[in-house]
Amino acid sequence: MEDFLQKAKSSSRVLNTLSGKEKNRILREMAQALRSNTMNLMEANALDMAAGEKNNLSSALMDRLYLDEKRIDAMAVAVEEIAALKEPVGRVLDGWLTEDGLKIEKVSIPIGVIGIIYESRPNVTSDTAALCFKSSNVCVLKGGKEAENSNQAIAKVLQAVLERNNLPKELISLLPDSSREGVAKLIKMDKYVDLIIPRGGEGLVRYVNDNATVSVVKHDKGLCHTYIDKDADQDKAIKIAINAKVQRPGVCNAMETLLVDKAVAAEVLPKLKAEFDKAGTDLRGCGETKVIISVDDATDEDYDTEYLANILSIKVVDGVEEAIEHIVRYGSGHSEAIVTENITTAEKFLNNIDAAALYVNASTRFTDGGAFGFGAEVGISTNKLHARGPMGIDGLTTYKFKIYGDGQIR
Amino acid sequence: MEDFLQKAKSSSRVLNTLSGKEKNRILREMAQALRSNTMNLMEANALDMAAGEKNNLSSALMDRLYLDEKRIDAMAVAVEEIAALKEPVGRVLDGWLTEDGLKIEKVSIPIGVIGIIYESRPNVTSDTAALCFKSSNVCVLKGGKEAENSNQAIAKVLQAVLERNNLPKELISLLPDSSREGVAKLIKMDKYVDLIIPRGGEGLVRYVNDNATVSVVKHDKGLCHTYIDKDADQDKAIKIAINAKVQRPGVCNAMETLLVDKAVAAEVLPKLKAEFDKAGTDLRGCGETKVIISVDDATDEDYDTEYLANILSIKVVDGVEEAIEHIVRYGSGHSEAIVTENITTAEKFLNNIDAAALYVNASTRFTDGGAFGFGAEVGISTNKLHARGPMGIDGLTTYKFKIYGDGQIR
Repeated sequence: MEDFLQKAKSSSRVLNTLSGKEKNRILREMAQALRSNTMNLMEANALDMAAGEKNNLSSALMDRLYLDEKRIDAMAVAVEEIAALKEPVGRVLDGWLTEDGLKIEKVSIPIGVIGIIYESRPNVTSDTAALCFKSSNVCVLKGGKEAENSNQAIAKVLQAVLERNNLPKELISLLPDSSREGVAKLIKMDKYVDLIIPRGGEGLVRYVNDNATVSVVKHDKGLCHTYIDKDADQDKAIKIAINAKVQRPGVCNAMETLLVDKAVAAEVLPKLKAEFDKAGTDLRGCGETKVIISVDDATDEDYDTEYLANILSIKVVDGVEEAIEHIVRYGSGHSEAIVTENITTAEKFLNNIDAAALYVNASTRFTDGGAFGFGAEVGISTNKLHARGPMGIDGLTTYKFKIYGDGQIR
Repeated sequence: MEDFLQKAKSSSRVLNTLSGKEKNRILREMAQALRSNTMNLMEANALDMAAGEKNNLSSALMDRLYLDEKRIDAMAVAVEEIAALKEPVGRVLDGWLTEDGLKIEKVSIPIGVIGIIYESRPNVTSDTAALCFKSSNVCVLKGGKEAENSNQAIAKVLQAVLERNNLPKELISLLPDSSREGVAKLIKMDKYVDLIIPRGGEGLVRYVNDNATVSVVKHDKGLCHTYIDKDADQDKAIKIAINAKVQRPGVCNAMETLLVDKAVAAEVLPKLKAEFDKAGTDLRGCGETKVIISVDDATDEDYDTEYLANILSIKVVDGVEEAIEHIVRYGSGHSEAIVTENITTAEKFLNNIDAAALYVNASTRFTDGGAFGFGAEVGISTNKLHARGPMGIDGLTTYKFKIYGDGQIR
């Protein structure tokens, strides 16, 4: 492992010698190579699908795992879109002249070697490899066990393009030991690895955070709330609540708990129930909710659960203060929304909750790189430092100060 | 410990309610309180000095520990200067309208609860407390054991000002258990603490980094180089080299190794030796150096050592490429300098070395918050993420996205 990572680290210097034009040409070549290897990739994927069937993977997981011509073309298109992004390295982020006459430039640079630990979707392999290559980082990829054949086939295609261009294949590598022990080693290799991004289950993210000596940017859970204020436009509120829960319940920016101001609960809850019933949502509510609409009990555990499913817990609260209290207690710092027409109430909500993304009169579902206009994304950071919320390609850079003098001493 | 940190965390919300004007008024009140408690502070300091004498602390350490009227006034002045800095919280760092018509604002916010572990100088206690208060963060301070009485007296003065202003004294706290075990607990409390800044010895920094579950911004060692290129202005080169080594050898941005291009070594080394001899510098050199000037042997271990003393290792190298190789191998990513008049050579040096601060024709001694124009500093980060190099008050903030919609759904 150490040999492998040492090679990965030393290969990173070659990336400094590539111009943006060259990187983009190679990325487009990778996209073409994915397309022309469609049959190989599908064969490798068939092995994973067969193993998945044998291991009784859920149909949702099987669907995420599956590759066909259309999905492989979408992978290629994503790589081309990444090639089209603005060069992220070498940007002058700030610059000034000091009192001593030194000219300081703060310039964006790659982070170095980035380890990414993710789950079943094989397209993450090509997306992440392309994002790292575009930002002149070396990536060490550790995908889900169930996608191993697909991921290896994809990496092989990309590495062949690197080698055709006289670049070391270590620039895009799969972790050689993909076992639990392999991950345990990887996250302690701060001598060679500059950043670990764990995407996936709570257990994995916690394990990596607690045991890594390498810096970690977590992509953890989203326990998101929507609060309907007494001053809400109720039509907007209903549309937003339904969208936040139902449009795609299995993702981290979906709503898990709905908070309703008691001043309007009697009016708005029956309307909400009618819409949620159409969507087949499993509703659970507090005592006050149950006085107004007929739903199951919501327990404390409900308020603490990221369902990732078409289930919603509801709580009636005494205005924005109690909504804030509840969110401070149960929220995961991902995305929180208020629906209100009152500007003072809105600002109170925005200023008193610490989360990556805070919405006024919009659905929490907008928290992603695409909707934010970042182009491709590495994921959604739940870290407070370095990158927060949708993590675009700029999140894969850091900076250095270049200082130009004319013989200055202190 | 958990109770204490929970209180610290919950106290942080009160900081949201303070305007910049109120914060600055309280900071100026703290400065005044430090001045009017000069006698108390000196008495507490005398206890530390007596214990230090008994424990045979070095004269350098005793000097760092010592407080007198002048030094206490300097502490007060520093707090007033921090009050005068621009408000770091609530700045709109970026803002745009998305394709969906959402208005996104990226706004600076406090990090939350910050644990700072530092060494003997008592003024760090008031500096850090003031920086954290100014940036609306709660600080948990763990100073050096040898300064315990002084630090407690300083904290008491600042806390009394908080309480006079009806603010919880937990906003500025000393870690109640300042033993090794106390630190071990603190760095695992990611539920309550958002950032740990270890300043100090390599062992401490490594220990914190390897064992923390809280995010860490390291303030680690500086093994800094100066490279004199064949195209250097030799007068500048000598002035810069002497300054980088001699002006204050005990600090992290001082030079430890001088690299000299072999094309000019025979000419420049004797001139350098004459100047370093005047400064009493202990010179050590490679074989090629010893052919030209009479110095002791520099071993591989020398090149790997942060002397923090008036000792310098010298190596003759074959041009900028070998200088870069050497720095990539031995450098600590802190500050590196090249002296050259050749723009292409300078850019090669700047682009191929990954360090926080890279200098052309200036002394590495400029790497600090004051010289960079940041006002007060928390320290010099050797992290690659979040804050790099001189860490000013902006390094004590993170950001959130405020998103304003008009009913948008996906």
